[in-house]
Amino acid sequence: MKNINNYLAKVLNVPLENVDRCSLHYDAKKIPKNQFLLQYGEVCRYIYFVEKGLLKMYSIDKNGKEHIIQFAPESWLISDRSSLYFNEKSIYYIETIEDSEVLLLHVDFISKLVEQFPNSLEKSDILVQKHIKSLQDRINSLLGETAEERYLKFIKRYPDLLLRVPQWMIASYLGITPESLSRVRKELARKNFVPDNK
Amino acid sequence: MKNINNYLAKVLNVPLENVDRCSLHYDAKKIPKNQFLLQYGEVCRYIYFVEKGLLKMYSIDKNGKEHIIQFAPESWLISDRSSLYFNEKSIYYIETIEDSEVLLLHVDFISKLVEQFPNSLEKSDILVQKHIKSLQDRINSLLGETAEERYLKFIKRYPDLLLRVPQWMIASYLGITPESLSRVRKELARKNFVPDNK
Repeated sequence: MKNINNYLAKVLNVPLENVDRCSLHYDAKKIPKNQFLLQYGEVCRYIYFVEKGLLKMYSIDKNGKEHIIQFAPESWLISDRSSLYFNEKSIYYIETIEDSEVLLLHVDFISKLVEQFPNSLEKSDILVQKHIKSLQDRINSLLGETAEERYLKFIKRYPDLLLRVPQWMIASYLGITPESLSRVRKELARKNFVPDNK
Repeated sequence: MKNINNYLAKVLNVPLENVDRCSLHYDAKKIPKNQFLLQYGEVCRYIYFVEKGLLKMYSIDKNGKEHIIQFAPESWLISDRSSLYFNEKSIYYIETIEDSEVLLLHVDFISKLVEQFPNSLEKSDILVQKHIKSLQDRINSLLGETAEERYLKFIKRYPDLLLRVPQWMIASYLGITPESLSRVRKELARKNFVPDNK
């Protein structure tokens, strides 16, 4: 079963026999790795659902350094919502890290869904609250957690990414230097830590 | 006019002649400074609207250090939404910094409002998107901005707070040491920077 259909049925409460009909409201696109879906200064037009592959959203500071805000592997949504909802020029980039298959959901995708399947309203509200929760957690983590605590949280959130993304990208996401990440990994290895991938 | 009535009319589109009726859906409370509205391990029951005074939400790390997630002066909302919506024990504290007058909005305050005044639906959606935007900005700022850039952003967001909160709290919010903040302030003074408080 396609990831999007599974997502619509399980996460957004769309009746299983109707999930195929939802495909009217999005376009699918195959995008090779290292291609942009959004660049600094553009207005973000879609929420992207990752059917296959891996995307990242990041900013670039004035020294040319990349800061990763979010990774999006299979079944994740990724978008610059501030640009999408307020029609503002984005300060972020969204780029494929691997060859990907991406579904382009329009800004009114959720409201169309709710119109057709009112039961999905509550679920879509929960999605937004979960998004807020995870952003709030991330701020707290950046303010107060050690590099090791952040790394362990990263592994929990993105268990499949450890082997899929280079170390420097993980360090960028964690807001630490690659050297600090390397120290954290050595320390965890010394303590015989094994990531618990479910 | 009370801050809440102004907020309901201007921000949430409630017809001016009806704003007083909304007071059925909240309770008002006077709270002296340095009192808790939420403590670690409790479930957050309300969204707090600050009618008068000043609140902060923060976490305490394992070394006993306080990390400020948000300030809430007059007409701001403050709450641990993850705890409020998912009934989870909070990892945060909400505390008054000044003697305050706070309105306790129940979790269904917005939905009751929308029921009575359907025009406020769109505005309440925008509120949520704005909240997401500001959290996303904060993450980006913590990942990639210098101490000076963060401080200038703080002044813009909270123009009235510079004289109301001690320096160490501002440093905690910015995720920098009080010594770094002191350096930033000296450097700005050297450049004859004057905060533009409108």
